Amino acid sequence: MKHIECIAIGNELLLGIVEEKNISWLCKRLTQAGGVVEQGVIVGDVPDDIEAAVRGAILRQAALVITCGGLGPTEDDQTMAILAEALNRPLEEHPEALAMVAERYRALYEAGEVPHPDLTPERRKMARLPRGAIPLRNTVGTAPGMLINIGDRTWVCALPGPPRENRPMVEQELIPRLGEIVPLHAYRERHYEAAVRDESVLAPLLQIVQRQHRDVYVKSRAAAFEAQTTFRLLLATRAPTAEEAEARLDAAEQSLRTILGEHGIALKTYSSHAPA
Amino acid sequence: MKHIECIAIGNELLLGIVEEKNISWLCKRLTQAGGVVEQGVIVGDVPDDIEAAVRGAILRQAALVITCGGLGPTEDDQTMAILAEALNRPLEEHPEALAMVAERYRALYEAGEVPHPDLTPERRKMARLPRGAIPLRNTVGTAPGMLINIGDRTWVCALPGPPRENRPMVEQELIPRLGEIVPLHAYRERHYEAAVRDESVLAPLLQIVQRQHRDVYVKSRAAAFEAQTTFRLLLATRAPTAEEAEARLDAAEQSLRTILGEHGIALKTYSSHAPA
Repeated sequence: MKHIECIAIGNELLLGIVEEKNISWLCKRLTQAGGVVEQGVIVGDVPDDIEAAVRGAILRQAALVITCGGLGPTEDDQTMAILAEALNRPLEEHPEALAMVAERYRALYEAGEVPHPDLTPERRKMARLPRGAIPLRNTVGTAPGMLINIGDRTWVCALPGPPRENRPMVEQELIPRLGEIVPLHAYRERHYEAAVRDESVLAPLLQIVQRQHRDVYVKSRAAAFEAQTTFRLLLATRAPTAEEAEARLDAAEQSLRTILGEHGIALKTYSSHAPA
Repeated sequence: MKHIECIAIGNELLLGIVEEKNISWLCKRLTQAGGVVEQGVIVGDVPDDIEAAVRGAILRQAALVITCGGLGPTEDDQTMAILAEALNRPLEEHPEALAMVAERYRALYEAGEVPHPDLTPERRKMARLPRGAIPLRNTVGTAPGMLINIGDRTWVCALPGPPRENRPMVEQELIPRLGEIVPLHAYRERHYEAAVRDESVLAPLLQIVQRQHRDVYVKSRAAAFEAQTTFRLLLATRAPTAEEAEARLDAAEQSLRTILGEHGIALKTYSSHAPA
């Protein structure tokens, strides 16, 4: 199964000044789109650490390595230069990326948001991509992202760090291409509440269900004893088709209901989406 | 500078079912306590991936490697066994950890939260730690954590995954010992708002401040052009003493005010804490 890895970049994340939110969101979004995320890494604005994280993901044979952050006009935003180095590609101004940057600043100037629309060195910097990259349009901020194939069916994608720029770029630019980059699976999940207070009572029962249904992920979520008297249970699976995924979950749910019922534990509610 | 690395463990994190919150919180808390966090990793409940993440942190000469998650009674919670393997220590029942588990279930039983206080195999499992570990008390859930010295001044700490269990254990058990484990620094940060709309105008000015004050981290935070007309700026530093840290920030702030003032940009407000 060709997998995805996500790398979040920024000293502000490691200092705890900005909460890292991109990796969890990418995990959810890419899983639902049919991808398989196997690792997330958070590193600072340290070229060696960023390069090591990217090389590590490639060594683990990730089909898609996604970086988040470090695309802006400031000196510490060095992701494109570091990726060029790590991928052994020259960093060069990309005409299409430059046109995107120019277009964004023109629009911001016309809206009265920036004092001039000129392509200063700091603005031009954002159009420098590793050779061979496809620029990805940023409809919120000004820095384009990029997607590049580095051979052996491995792709690297650089996204902006701020979630309000990152998420639209994923939706508009990455998700539509995802099927060309990684094999897609039908992913389905179901959520339940079990009327039981003690996870250590639940554990051996879930273990039986898990062993009967190895292709389904069976998970109970710990909850505080004081606050509530139920546990949340999850069944999730990936399959070649949606029908197969649903059939697997039907079978696992049946086993779960049976075995919990035998122990007097009701499955109180369920949903195909996570409870709020 | 002997650093800290954090590893969050759980398939539910990579599936995007549960948002990963421990690493960002640990980054903030440990930085403020004087530690230096240099990397965060999120992996699934996959023994090889967990072991590789732990070994990677040790190879990078982390002074403290913190894992979050996988301590519970269920079969997929295998962190202690995997750490024992990675650290080449036998996994064995720890009398003090067993007493902690027994005490928690006794209290839960007396509060009517669990049907019996007995030490079932699932409950006993939570008291199995790598040989030489110090058990860490869990005052919310039932699984103890652990702290272990593995030589060469390297420590490994295993914490529970649910934030409501993780955070009290950090406060009560890890922070009081932190100075014995890693060298502590005085960390100070200050936040500002600059009355400027365009980060690419700000960038070359901040670059000058950064070059004049290499021991201070100078950062602007991207904001959407549409929503606001200011940028948030940050100055942060670590120093041997609080006085030295404050003096560095005083000097960098003075430079920042001067250079922004010369370009007609006011530093509107500032705080020693992050704005809400």
